[in-house]
Parts: sequence; structure tokens; C-alpha cells
Amino acid sequence: MFSASGYFQRLRQSTTLWTNLARSKSIKHHGLTFARRQSSSVPLKSSRPWSPIIIGSIASGLVGYSLSAFGKPYLTSEALEIEPKYGTPKDFEQAIKELRALFDSDDIVSTHKEDLRIHGYSENDHHPILHSPTHVSLPGAPHTVIVYPKSTEDVVKIVKTAVKYRMPLIPFSGGTCLEGGYRSSPVGGICVDMSGMNKIIEIHEADSDLVCQPGIGWMEINEILQQKGIPLFFPLDPGPGATIGGMMSTGCSGTNAVRYGTAKGEWFLNATVVLPSGEVIKTRQRARKSAAGFDTTKLFIGAEGTLGIITEVTIRLAPVLPTTVAIVHFPDVKRATEAVIDVINRGVGIQCVELCDSEFMRSINLYGASQHKYPEQDSLFFKFQGPTSASIAETSKIVKEIVQKHGGTGYQLARTEKEALDLWADRKNALYSGLALLEGSRGWSTDVCVPISKLPQLVYETKQDLQRLGLVSIVLGHVGDGNFHTQLLFRNDKELEIVREAVHRMVERALKLEGTCTGEHGVGIGKREYLYEELGEGTVELMRSVKKTMDPLGLFNPGKVSQIDRVSGVWC
Amino acid sequence: MFSASGYFQRLRQSTTLWTNLARSKSIKHHGLTFARRQSSSVPLKSSRPWSPIIIGSIASGLVGYSLSAFGKPYLTSEALEIEPKYGTPKDFEQAIKELRALFDSDDIVSTHKEDLRIHGYSENDHHPILHSPTHVSLPGAPHTVIVYPKSTEDVVKIVKTAVKYRMPLIPFSGGTCLEGGYRSSPVGGICVDMSGMNKIIEIHEADSDLVCQPGIGWMEINEILQQKGIPLFFPLDPGPGATIGGMMSTGCSGTNAVRYGTAKGEWFLNATVVLPSGEVIKTRQRARKSAAGFDTTKLFIGAEGTLGIITEVTIRLAPVLPTTVAIVHFPDVKRATEAVIDVINRGVGIQCVELCDSEFMRSINLYGASQHKYPEQDSLFFKFQGPTSASIAETSKIVKEIVQKHGGTGYQLARTEKEALDLWADRKNALYSGLALLEGSRGWSTDVCVPISKLPQLVYETKQDLQRLGLVSIVLGHVGDGNFHTQLLFRNDKELEIVREAVHRMVERALKLEGTCTGEHGVGIGKREYLYEELGEGTVELMRSVKKTMDPLGLFNPGKVSQIDRVSGVWC
Repeated sequence: MFSASGYFQRLRQSTTLWTNLARSKSIKHHGLTFARRQSSSVPLKSSRPWSPIIIGSIASGLVGYSLSAFGKPYLTSEALEIEPKYGTPKDFEQAIKELRALFDSDDIVSTHKEDLRIHGYSENDHHPILHSPTHVSLPGAPHTVIVYPKSTEDVVKIVKTAVKYRMPLIPFSGGTCLEGGYRSSPVGGICVDMSGMNKIIEIHEADSDLVCQPGIGWMEINEILQQKGIPLFFPLDPGPGATIGGMMSTGCSGTNAVRYGTAKGEWFLNATVVLPSGEVIKTRQRARKSAAGFDTTKLFIGAEGTLGIITEVTIRLAPVLPTTVAIVHFPDVKRATEAVIDVINRGVGIQCVELCDSEFMRSINLYGASQHKYPEQDSLFFKFQGPTSASIAETSKIVKEIVQKHGGTGYQLARTEKEALDLWADRKNALYSGLALLEGSRGWSTDVCVPISKLPQLVYETKQDLQRLGLVSIVLGHVGDGNFHTQLLFRNDKELEIVREAVHRMVERALKLEGTCTGEHGVGIGKREYLYEELGEGTVELMRSVKKTMDPLGLFNPGKVSQIDRVSGVWC
Repeated sequence: MFSASGYFQRLRQSTTLWTNLARSKSIKHHGLTFARRQSSSVPLKSSRPWSPIIIGSIASGLVGYSLSAFGKPYLTSEALEIEPKYGTPKDFEQAIKELRALFDSDDIVSTHKEDLRIHGYSENDHHPILHSPTHVSLPGAPHTVIVYPKSTEDVVKIVKTAVKYRMPLIPFSGGTCLEGGYRSSPVGGICVDMSGMNKIIEIHEADSDLVCQPGIGWMEINEILQQKGIPLFFPLDPGPGATIGGMMSTGCSGTNAVRYGTAKGEWFLNATVVLPSGEVIKTRQRARKSAAGFDTTKLFIGAEGTLGIITEVTIRLAPVLPTTVAIVHFPDVKRATEAVIDVINRGVGIQCVELCDSEFMRSINLYGASQHKYPEQDSLFFKFQGPTSASIAETSKIVKEIVQKHGGTGYQLARTEKEALDLWADRKNALYSGLALLEGSRGWSTDVCVPISKLPQLVYETKQDLQRLGLVSIVLGHVGDGNFHTQLLFRNDKELEIVREAVHRMVERALKLEGTCTGEHGVGIGKREYLYEELGEGTVELMRSVKKTMDPLGLFNPGKVSQIDRVSGVWC
């Protein structure tokens, strides 16, 4: 049983953490009914406070695997042993009645079965979660009700209803999360779909900022600015469907991070947030800088909806500059990465530098958007930026010299704008091209990030591991940041379990190299178990204490980000 | 009485805030012994919960003024009505005994009178604080004991002793704070002088980062990198004496912020912090990016030592690029600022753009570091950056065209490196040149920040106000960020009170223009009263709830940042 042995191995690794964790005064044991049924055959001292958690987790592996293997449907809240702190199914029914009365429209409050399903489902969520030894939620947990607010005031009404009936709240916007961030809670809940709050409210061209609602996408914003002839853009560029609220909530970045940094930088000047208390705050004024205390905006960047619901945001914009694209090929990833370090530290005008492995280049040749055929070698795609074409030419000249010094061959600078767009489209279509490498497959996409000097080792060891397992995969990296992505393909549950373990080993490898379990995708449910190992107990406990202070009822996107509730599936 | 009328006026403005504040459940009234003695002559409904605070504040103006006028010494804790939550003077004596036993060296634990005084004194702290109607602390509050830790472990020992004896802890490092951030608490306390923790621990050239202790200065770091021939630097450039710990704690920036952003961006990759519990955490790994939950590092950026003591930091570095300097003169500030907006939005290679008003230019002509004589007009100093001299020339050409379009005259690009250094030295010596404009004067330096489009109005109205008052002053701005500095000169307490009110009106003006009471200097004691108006009650209460969660005893730099304790002078 690959899965089970994997879980055993991981539990052994995390035993000490769990011991410390369980000993720390801030730990309580919720929803551990199953602990009383623990199997005595499991070789653990049952006197230890963490033993129920361990048993639960072991069972998680076994039950998670077996259920996912047999593809049983998600179990409804009625079938679960629920935390008493949540409302009963009857309370939830009453909450829905009140929401209908408050909004008086089926367009705003929906319990349509398909609506509930699609808002809780993601084809990228591969994480079964145990709620008791006999009850597990498989990927794709439907919500109890979907509400489509149009304003901050609407969100306040929803939050107050949720608090009144102790009903979980799960924000939803672009639906592009790769780690199960918007699946429902084990007891169901209110999914707050922000897609109706997708307006630009004010554009301040002179200040290079704009005020918008969180449901608008970064691509839409940039299209609107272009249509209006405003030579500014928002430089964070995660997946195409990502929206401002989700981008803040996951602490996103993208290919432009080399030049512009991430969501955790200074692109979000302020946010209007509905707190779990129902109170509305605006975190900061619109000035570009402020030293007036610590920046509460930052609490909501990376919190994945666990601390509040963002309803309005001021984002900073950057000048649109002329850009072009170049590509170069290397004998191996190590040489490619070493070239990147040299290029970055020269401070030339690089907007993006992307690593694409030989498998990915093969996938482009087979299924790429352009008709261009590439050498099937580990390659770098560069995006250079002006202010002028003269400075781009200068940058290209410097970069060409550096990459050739590191064994780069076939350096090619796009000759026309169309050629640049084609080259870049081939890079951006990675996931689709990748999937096409294995007929009938699905993909597990994940990312980690390490100090750039450690990237060659990480990439090398990971590729070795994937080859050993015989997995079909592609490797991509925002290599200028040490951010490493893989897409691992699988066709059935057995291959899925192999992929799951490969992802786990990749994360463990990154953590040992002073890295993080996620550079930009976020934690959701998929990466929860690594936070203690990555950040240490004290830092995670600090995050938890802030969460508890802000959301004492634990209603806001319960079970996301927090490691602690990997067993009970609810905030404790 | 200028001061008193000013305080009355300000209290009228803030009445609503205080009412909300006092009504919010999270407010408690501490140390209000004086409330029972409140003067019935003050025309306020004493039934209102905020009236003691109001009375206290009114008294603060009167007593603060009268005492500062007579220059009475700081009143020691014995003379104060102290919050019962703090230890008694006897407890503090015992704490000092234990500290001596723990460290066994007079070099590490000092109660030398002059040591206590200089660690609590700043010539830039002009803020009398009322503790009761008859007791006020004047600028320069001495500490009870100074401790000089050498390691994180030392800091843990100090924190545990402080907690045991309920003794305030005030971190001290560069001593450059302009807002009274390191004066002692009204009951005294342990000043933790971090200047002995000033080592670089690791340099990772390939990763463009380094690990250091918080007592090291940014200038020292850059000198060491230069001596080692490492072509990287740390780009945050506040006052010359500033150290990494203080820079994080105030959320600093400087002239380079136009290109590199501020301390609230991504220059501090992680921090090792001793929390008020005595626990040591490391906020993040060393990877450049992470989406693993919200970034707890950011809690300590701008917290001014109220949430923990930073003992180790990983900072990100940037490539050293060739730079040069240019200067241009304008008919007025409005035209100059409009030119800057155009330049910034062209995305050319600007590292800094500094506004210097005609008075400042006059001061340089009289007392500048170089022998250069400038037109005494409102002027812009630019710093351009490469990657190459060709791109600098290109940038200069573009900027020259833009500024001339906006009425800029006498555009001059430094012809040699020496000329560039001289020009920049003249800008950087602002405060010293400024002081020389009025013999025997002291200066009140302060800053605010607004959206850049609002800067012309802010600067214009402020200069009008200063002229009306007949104050000698200089105006400077990191104009690319909308960050506006003034240095207001005074020779006696009467002029000081006029300056105090002028500063207050400047801040109020900035807040009305969507700005902040401080762009980079921090809050300390000097800007506390503006936080509710700037951020709103909900946001400040959120900051307070995080503080209370992390420091339930309120021992960490009490009275700093927090508006709430402007009366009691202690955390409540």
C-alpha cells in the first residue's frame, strides 16, 4: 500500500512536531470522537496526548486512499461527527431562509445542486481529508449555499448571518486555486462568490494606482487600462483567471516577480475588509508609503480568506514598457541556473526569466501554440524590458554574453513583436501542452521555492526521483526567484498515489534547502501539513493566535492554511 | 496660550473618535485616578466615558507647555500613579539584581546615570506626555537599567526577567528615532541596547541576501560588501546612523524608495524574534518568495518594538549599478511635482528624485558641503542608475526633455563622479545645512506622505502656513513617493509651541489628502494621536488586538505607536 506506507513514514518524521504541538498550552482536541475507537494494533503509546492525532492521521492515509480508490462520494455533514461549535443542519437551513429574505433574489442566494458542486470542486484538488476513521471528504466538497454579494454591505449581511448561525464562510472568486482552498468545510457552509464585485471604482493615473473590487481579474484590469490608453499595468501575473481578491489571499506572484516582486510586496496599498466580527475596516490610506504602525494589509495577504473577506482594494500600477523575448538552451539545468544567477546580479533589465526542462520543450514541439520547433534541451525564456528599444538591445547583448559563458547555445532574440508573443505564448501554455504528453491523463501541479543557489540541486534530485518513478512530468521555474513548478501526470488512483508521494518528497527536499512548501500557489489544504516543519511551531502558533483573535468562532474558511485541523478538519 | 487653544481645537476635532473609542467594548480606563479630580471648569459632559481622557489631554497641553516652559526635570516613577500591572520600584531593583547575576558584568548591565539618560533622550523628541494632571514626563525619559545583549539567548534572559518582575522593555539600537520611540516608559524599564549585536553572520552572494544581527547599520553593511568586492548593496537608505533592527521596526525607507520600495516590501526575508512570551521564532525560511500563509515577518515591520525584540534578520540585496546625479530648477513646487509624475510614469531608470525648496537651496549656498552655488529656486535632484553609462545617458536625455516641458531650467547632469558625489552630499546634508539658517536654533523634523498627485497642494498650503507663522524652515521631499519632509526651526519654548501646532496642521492636511501622518519616520509618541483619524477605529483596534494577543502584559515598548495610552502613558 504505497499511500499507507507513505503516511506512516511522514508521521514518523512529524512525531516530534506533533508532540511539541500537543504539549503547547494552545492546543485543544476537537472532534476526536474517533480517538476513542483507536486501534490498539498501532504501535504508539496511547498515553501520549498526540496519539489520537497520529492514529487519526494514519487512518487518514488508509481511509483516504481506500475511499479515493473506490471513488466514494463526499459525505454530507449529516454523516459526520461535527464540532459542537458549528450550527446544526437546521440552523443552516434557517440561515439560508434569512439570506433569501435579506437578498430577496435567487440570483444572489443559490442552493442549486450544480452551483454548490462547482463552487467546491477543483480538478486540481487531490487531497482527501479525514474527519473520522470512517468518514473522509474526498476532493470536491460542495457548499450548503452560494451567495453572490454586490457590495461591502452585502458581505456584512452574509457575515452577520453566518455568525448568528455559526456557519462556515468560504470566499470564492477566480476559482483557480491549486490546493483546495475553496472546497467547502466538512460541515458545509456559505460560499461567498465575489465574481459580481468586479468593478474598477477609481483610476488615479497620476498616482499610478487604482481602486477596484476583488472579483476583477488582473488581465481584465490590464485590458481596461490598455483600452483607455493609460500606459500603466498591474504587474502581478499568476494564472489567467486569477482575481485581485484571490491574488491577495494566496500571496501570489508569477513570471514578473523577478522585476516586480510578489503580492507580499507593495502592490496592494490598502484593502477594505469585512472582519469576522462583521466590522468593516480599511487597512490604510492611499499614500504609497506609510510608517504608521505595522501594515494590517499584510495580514490578509496569504491568509486565504481565513481572517476576513476583502471587498475593495487599492493596487499600485507600473509603467508599460516595451518588452521582447529571448530563448537559449543549455546542456543541463545546473548550467542554466548558474547563468541566471549571473544575469540577475548584473541588474540588467530583466522582466522575467523562465526555466523550461527538456520534457516541456518536447511538449511544446508536439502541442505548442506556435509552430516553432525548439531543441529539446533544458532552456531559458527571458523577457527583457525597456524604457527604450536601445536599452533592450543593450540588455540582450549583455545577457547573450553571460549565458554563452555558461554553455548556453542557440540564443535567439525575437525579431518581431509577433515572434516575441509566440515564444511567450508557448511558455504560458505550459500546463495544457504538458497534459497532452500523456493521453487521458490529469495533472498535479505544485510549486516550491528555494534560495536560487539551491535550485540546481532541487531540480536535479527531483528529476531523478520522477524518472525513477517512471512518471511523465514537466518542470518549469520562475528561476530568477528560485521558484520551481512541476506538473506530474497520472491516469488512475494508483498513479495518483505515486504522484502524491513524489510531491511530498519534493516539498521535503525544498524545506531541507531553506525553502518553502509553496512559492506562490498557497497552502489551502494541500500544503497544511508542512507549515510546522517549514516555519517552526512558534511561528505557526503565532499565526494561529492571530487567527483566533480575529476569528474566535473559526468560521472563516475553516481548515485552510492551518495545519492543526488536518485531523478534525475544522479550526480548533 | 497658543498651546492650550491648539489642544482644545484638536480635542474638538477628535471628540467623535474618542466617543466611538470609549464606547467600543475593547476600551478599558486605566490609571484614571486623575479623572476623579477633573476640573469642573472644563466645558465637557463629564458623564461621557471619554471625558477623563479629554480632560487629561487638555491638561496635557497646559501642563506640558507650562512644565516644558519651566524646564522641570522628568518625574520619576515614584512620583507617578502607576498602573498596578507593573512591578513596584522594589520589584525593579530585584530585577536589576537578577540581571547582574545572570550576566555577571558591568559591561552588560548598566545603571550608570548618564547611560540611563542618553538611552532615553533624543534632541528630536519634543513631546511632553501627561500621566496625571499634575505629573507629566518631558522629552528625554531615562530608563531604569540598560542591558547590552550579545546573543538571542541573552535577549531571552532579559525578556524572562522583565516578565517575572513586570518591567517594561524598550529596545534601543541606532538611536536615530525622530518621534520619541526609545524614551523610557513612565515607570521606567529595561532598555535593551542592541548595538553589541552588530555582526554579519552569513553572506550569500549567489542568492543576493545576507544574514545579520539587528544592531548593524545599513551603511556598515554596504561598506563591508564593497570592501569584500561583492557587487551588491542593501538599498534602504534612511538616516546615516540607522540600524537594521530599527529600520525594520519603523518601516523605514529613504531616497532609494522610488526604485526599491520600503521596509514594508520584500527586503526583509525573515527575522528571528524573541516574543513577549520569551519564545524565539524565525518568521520564514530564506527563500525569496513564499505563499505559506500570511507573512509574520510583516508584523514586526513598523511595530517599533511593541511586539517582540528582533535578534537576527535575513535581508535581500540588490546589484550595485553605476549611478549619476542631475539637478534642475523650477518656478514653483507645483511644476516640479508635475514633472516628477511624468518622469516616474515613463519608467526610466530613476533611483531617486528629491524635491528641495528654495529655502533649502539657500541653506546649501550658505552652508552646503560642496562649494557649488545653486539658483535659490525649488529644485529637483535626480539620481539615475545604469546598468551601463549608455543607459544612464539615455535616461538623462528623456528626463531633461520632460522637466523642460514642465518649466524646468538649468538642467545639469554631473560631469564627473566627484561632481555627482558633491551634488548628492549637498542634498544629504539637508538637516545640518537647515539648522544653520537660524543661529542658536533647534529643529523639529517630521514627515508625512500623500498620493503624489496631492503633493503640490500639500506643499503649497504648508509653505503658506509656515510663512504666515514667520517660521524659519526647509522643505524636502522624496517626491517620487509623495513623501514630504520639513525641518522647522525654533529657539525657545514659545517658538516650539508654534512649531508644534504647525506640524499638527501639516499632518491634518496630509490626512485629508488621503495621506499618512508619517511616510517613514514612524509613530513613536509623536504621531500616536493621529492613528484613529488616519486608519479608522477598526484598523487601530485590530492592531491593538494583535498587540494584546502577543504582549498581554503590555511590557514591550509601552506607550509607543498606540494612541490609546496617550493619557495613561501605559498600554491598556
